[in-house]
Amino acid sequence: MNFLEEKIITDGKIFDENILKVDGFLNHQIDMDIMRQIACEFKRRFKGDHVDKILTIEASGIAVAVMLANMYDVPVVFAKKNATVNSTDDKYMSEAYSFTQKKMNNIFVSKPYLKEGECILIIDDFLADGQAASALIDIVNQAKAKVVGIGVAIEKGQQKGGKILREKGFHVESLAIIDSMNTETQTVFFRRQ
Amino acid sequence: MNFLEEKIITDGKIFDENILKVDGFLNHQIDMDIMRQIACEFKRRFKGDHVDKILTIEASGIAVAVMLANMYDVPVVFAKKNATVNSTDDKYMSEAYSFTQKKMNNIFVSKPYLKEGECILIIDDFLADGQAASALIDIVNQAKAKVVGIGVAIEKGQQKGGKILREKGFHVESLAIIDSMNTETQTVFFRRQ
Repeated sequence: MNFLEEKIITDGKIFDENILKVDGFLNHQIDMDIMRQIACEFKRRFKGDHVDKILTIEASGIAVAVMLANMYDVPVVFAKKNATVNSTDDKYMSEAYSFTQKKMNNIFVSKPYLKEGECILIIDDFLADGQAASALIDIVNQAKAKVVGIGVAIEKGQQKGGKILREKGFHVESLAIIDSMNTETQTVFFRRQ
Repeated sequence: MNFLEEKIITDGKIFDENILKVDGFLNHQIDMDIMRQIACEFKRRFKGDHVDKILTIEASGIAVAVMLANMYDVPVVFAKKNATVNSTDDKYMSEAYSFTQKKMNNIFVSKPYLKEGECILIIDDFLADGQAASALIDIVNQAKAKVVGIGVAIEKGQQKGGKILREKGFHVESLAIIDSMNTETQTVFFRRQ
């Protein structure tokens, strides 16, 4: 059992067979020990890959992306869900359904921040049905940049996102893959990697 | 002129006398050199203050907060604007008007993540009318925790937020305070600190 699986067992909470709550250390309160170790582990798993930029999506992907970008010494770009008065540039746009917010989000990256030919590492906290990851890939493709890999902290292995992305040939690294959860016993079963 | 003022002059864009766009290095694309230096400078300016936790608000406050938390080795808590299916805990709630989104946001922190007596450093990317900072202070007060300081990267000195917070006795540190901007000449005038 790795550091993240152990943390999920200790501090995660299961609400039904589909909802794992990790907001005590990952996506509301952020545990810096875990965050540093997640960044180190992504660095190890993508060793040898050239990375020009890290792309994530607001809000909970930002912490992991920034810690990893600090190691690579490359910029982070985070896709936004809501245009603001400052969003005046032309944009690459895509759509992703959010299961936790139960709504469709338009997401975008302003065109100056993804350039043709750049090697992009996509980072997020969760991978479930792959909606966010697919939207980010779509945006990278629109920019004619290249996805070098997709790193997620926690993959819900029961949902189809990881399978689809791997079948498409993407290098997906998930630090913990959940195969099933039991609400009554509060047990999580991880996939062996 | 400090590092951040210089970066604003070089890479910021002024849209009218009120809108400074810094999404090339601060709140859409994140420049890690600037981010590291912002964190170091906050650490210096709050030297001697005990900090148990860093509180910010999603999304663009997270990057700065995480870099600083990595130096203090304390957790980050980011206030959320939208409840999700995972938001099952009791919450401390407040309201803040967003000028960039032009809407009122309900913001919240789940109760387990702020504890009575904790020393909280509030961090954000921008301070304008002080709406977000005031909402975060309100939340810290509800938790009976203590605000040790408020650190913002860029303060819009023409707006009233910084003045109000300082008059209330808060220790506010802004790494760049903009006194005025001129759209035509693309000139920014900073307050001497």
